[in-house]
Amino acid sequence: MKEIKVGLIGFGTVGTGVVKILQENASVIEQRLGGRIYLYKIADIDLKRDRGVQVPTEILTSDVQEVIANPEISIVLELIGGIEPARTFILKAMESGKHVVTANKALLALHREEIFTAAQKYGVRIGFEASVGGGIPIIRSIREGLVANKIISLFGILNGTSNYILTRMTQEGKGFRETLKEAQRLGYAEADPTLDVEGIDAAHKLSILASLAFGIKVDFQDIFVEGISHITPLDIQFSREFGYRVKLLAIGKWDGGRVELRVHPTMLPADHLLSTVEGVYNAIYIFGDAVGPTMFYGQGAGGLPTGSAVVSDLVDLCRDIIKGLNRQGPLITPFWSSHQGVVKDMEEVVTPYYLRFTAVDRPGVLSKISGILGEHEISIASVIQKGRRVKGAVPIVMMTHEATERNIRRALHEINRLDVIRARTTLIRVEGEVT
Amino acid sequence: MKEIKVGLIGFGTVGTGVVKILQENASVIEQRLGGRIYLYKIADIDLKRDRGVQVPTEILTSDVQEVIANPEISIVLELIGGIEPARTFILKAMESGKHVVTANKALLALHREEIFTAAQKYGVRIGFEASVGGGIPIIRSIREGLVANKIISLFGILNGTSNYILTRMTQEGKGFRETLKEAQRLGYAEADPTLDVEGIDAAHKLSILASLAFGIKVDFQDIFVEGISHITPLDIQFSREFGYRVKLLAIGKWDGGRVELRVHPTMLPADHLLSTVEGVYNAIYIFGDAVGPTMFYGQGAGGLPTGSAVVSDLVDLCRDIIKGLNRQGPLITPFWSSHQGVVKDMEEVVTPYYLRFTAVDRPGVLSKISGILGEHEISIASVIQKGRRVKGAVPIVMMTHEATERNIRRALHEINRLDVIRARTTLIRVEGEVT
Repeated sequence: MKEIKVGLIGFGTVGTGVVKILQENASVIEQRLGGRIYLYKIADIDLKRDRGVQVPTEILTSDVQEVIANPEISIVLELIGGIEPARTFILKAMESGKHVVTANKALLALHREEIFTAAQKYGVRIGFEASVGGGIPIIRSIREGLVANKIISLFGILNGTSNYILTRMTQEGKGFRETLKEAQRLGYAEADPTLDVEGIDAAHKLSILASLAFGIKVDFQDIFVEGISHITPLDIQFSREFGYRVKLLAIGKWDGGRVELRVHPTMLPADHLLSTVEGVYNAIYIFGDAVGPTMFYGQGAGGLPTGSAVVSDLVDLCRDIIKGLNRQGPLITPFWSSHQGVVKDMEEVVTPYYLRFTAVDRPGVLSKISGILGEHEISIASVIQKGRRVKGAVPIVMMTHEATERNIRRALHEINRLDVIRARTTLIRVEGEVT
Repeated sequence: MKEIKVGLIGFGTVGTGVVKILQENASVIEQRLGGRIYLYKIADIDLKRDRGVQVPTEILTSDVQEVIANPEISIVLELIGGIEPARTFILKAMESGKHVVTANKALLALHREEIFTAAQKYGVRIGFEASVGGGIPIIRSIREGLVANKIISLFGILNGTSNYILTRMTQEGKGFRETLKEAQRLGYAEADPTLDVEGIDAAHKLSILASLAFGIKVDFQDIFVEGISHITPLDIQFSREFGYRVKLLAIGKWDGGRVELRVHPTMLPADHLLSTVEGVYNAIYIFGDAVGPTMFYGQGAGGLPTGSAVVSDLVDLCRDIIKGLNRQGPLITPFWSSHQGVVKDMEEVVTPYYLRFTAVDRPGVLSKISGILGEHEISIASVIQKGRRVKGAVPIVMMTHEATERNIRRALHEINRLDVIRARTTLIRVEGEVT
């Protein structure tokens, strides 16, 4: 039976998950592959820590060169994350003819083109199923399962930490800070939660998915990103009254020419399938012109789920090595070469809006606000004004019909400067009909 | 640019969907594939009917030999369905060296081994993504995306017609016959609905999924199959009161040795993700030992969704032909060669049960029924007795704790013969905790 030697860089949560899977499911993987995966070297800075798995001491090394420059090794798993030194390690490994599997969404979001170009140059492949949606086979599904489709739209709950916080805020009526602390205590949020709660991690993943789904090059800075830290229990309560749930969504929409790419808290109809995705789970809802609506659901993080995706890429590469095949080519490298469109400016996006004004409780205020909205061609679908006065101000909540982001921004700029307005207006974009 | 000639047998709903996709998405498929798919011949008995697509008259033929024996053609799409002549056409096409793509679940359920053996013998591949779950890329996801996992359990809503009927019965409180007629009027059910409403179509699909997921040979007759035609609005109402929904589920569970395979109406907790899958939609919920719970959702039928899956297989084959690769092998042929287990007898299945007795309204009846259940080691979790008397009888509804199917059958055999019982007892199996 053929044996393929694999090197692992990064013996952290995901690395440990991969090692566990390769040990515990060795025989079933061997049967399915028709070959043996031999974990030949593991490089990490910390070789002392107990990770709950047994590996022979001689395969452990603190010298990464023993992996990336090792002539025995055919495939390198990069599981340290972050930009550097991950980027350099991957490029060096490719240069020495090794295929690479990575879970590194930040690197692929920011340096995708460099990495893919290097893979092509050195005739190797790169697997990145684990970079988006943890164990959900979403990269494969877009590139292969839905290959017959023009993807019209894509809505993802791509960050488990944010989804956990919003779910708990909805269930408990507690505030963002308090819920974040609970998430940190439970290990669902990092000590520095910025990447997660400010939408950056979700945007990294959206950039990868969008490049595949829409066949475009995506400059990361072209994605509009807004996090969930300003969402209050009051907003969540109002959104429920309107029949919505608040989710941090990564949204991609193709209008036949240009593509909208945005990550922000979104009000989604309560009966939408994505609204039922709770806690740390991830889901990706994709509408293809032939297939119609589809959804892919699972755990978006964690050693074993993410490890499941890493090993799926590993098996795929091993299969080709065993058969002496090289499947470099358009379906394997991403679709971005096909350039179906360009990214739309956020100001041109059209969507309904939820607006919460904090105004003094005085006659004429509502008419002043709605007057300014009208001047900017924003029409109001419904209004709620109720609740107790806090520091002399009351919340006025409006759902608008579809309006452009540009007009909303201009109107809010004016409204926020009115002397009857006591706090910056909260805005949540709405998906009325998710198609 | 390389061009691959493809022949289509069966210009029906799915065939037409495939032709539409190949025409409308030709350029995007070409970019992604790096080659051109040339629909070279279409064979059908009826060449007159208007299908809403334009094809050159010269490619149409009523002689199937012009497809399966045509030396120009590399790939044959079999989209006529049913056992014969589909089986013969596929075997002949393989014999003349052609790869095959099929959506034929009945054929694969009953003659899978013969078809796969022939593929191996003639060195060709067979794609069957379209045979289960319409456009949902579930075959790929199990074989490739989840390849690192031992699959612990699998729950599928695999028949859109039954799911539509149960959804409408739940929404409207109407009976099975009336709702079936509505479904037929809307084109969601066939004139002869037996395959769909009696669970046979779902069992065909379960047999295909289970062979891949659990690595076993499945004799179709080893699958327990029960349809939805005996489900009444009363049962749906009671199940709601207990916090459940009734779904026709295809269930596969692996206990480390043997596999349970069954298709029947199932009471599923109302807050389970599968309970939110409504109308004609399909979904497959899979629990893998590494990945945990996952779900795949989409349209399970229709020309374009099913066509999307057919074309995904077609592109996959074309890619290999263009590159001169042959990926025959364990990952491509199914997992059944690995024989992880055998199918468990239905009588050994253990699950909670919903039981609805139709009994005369007389003292001592409840004690008689519960006495017999007790003798068969069936313990009762809760009882509802209420509602109006119909023809002198009242419904008594019980939820049991876990019990073996054997004991339930024996107990009901005795109970149904009691003179206080006025109608055959209704039984619905329950998934208390779907993991």
